[in-house]
Amino acid sequence: MSTEQQLRETEAFFHERIPITRAMEIRVEGYDGDRLILSAPLAANHNHLGTAFGGSLAAVATLAGYGLVWLELGDRAAHVVIRESAVSYRRPVHGQIRAICRRPGAAEVTAFKAQFAQKGKARLRLEVTIEEEGLVAVEFNGLFVALK
Amino acid sequence: MSTEQQLRETEAFFHERIPITRAMEIRVEGYDGDRLILSAPLAANHNHLGTAFGGSLAAVATLAGYGLVWLELGDRAAHVVIRESAVSYRRPVHGQIRAICRRPGAAEVTAFKAQFAQKGKARLRLEVTIEEEGLVAVEFNGLFVALK
Repeated sequence: MSTEQQLRETEAFFHERIPITRAMEIRVEGYDGDRLILSAPLAANHNHLGTAFGGSLAAVATLAGYGLVWLELGDRAAHVVIRESAVSYRRPVHGQIRAICRRPGAAEVTAFKAQFAQKGKARLRLEVTIEEEGLVAVEFNGLFVALK
Repeated sequence: MSTEQQLRETEAFFHERIPITRAMEIRVEGYDGDRLILSAPLAANHNHLGTAFGGSLAAVATLAGYGLVWLELGDRAAHVVIRESAVSYRRPVHGQIRAICRRPGAAEVTAFKAQFAQKGKARLRLEVTIEEEGLVAVEFNGLFVALK
């Protein structure tokens, strides 16, 4: 669980340090300790068909993964990078982009944090879905690496 | 092979119809009939580490795939969508993002165009690399679908 202040700080960090996230108008909506939710409006992220651009969908999902790693580590100085990703675009997104990154199981998160603390480097595989009207539009699977 | 005019039209189409590509300052550099090259400056696309943001890298690669399908079909009214992608981030990109989409073999492209003409729907798998100083930084594999 994260406080409103932590969410606002994370959003400000994105906007200041990753400038394209400002143009994408990305918002950190909430994190209840289970699901981190990011959003971005269609107006800034549509494609030639009036639906969400695949590149924006991948970028919002990637950022949701970064966000979850940062919020879990509580260490903004940690260098978080993405190593690989697989995305399945199942249906078009017609409105706001809403990306949900699910926290892995407690044992996995504990092992990730312990390894980061001990070795200064740890990997975490994260699942992100982009959903609209109760349906999964995009499935994203990413491997993230945190480095001290 | 595409004329300078076709490249400028494709770039203008991206900027007009997919607005985030303006913010990313994406340029269509060239297409010699074998390699379509797109670029985007680091300044508009950097991350918190001062290297290229993974989301921008995925977006530029996705757009390179769209561009190749459009230039090959020569039909701007074709609806091109991405169905799936896999990205491997092998090394950070420290300067300009330079994405290279390679045209598949002639037989594959011919079959793709014939199926699009006959059935109004066809799929093409495309490889895109992002390279810097002669080294592959990002490998992208995407499945694109064109619909009449």
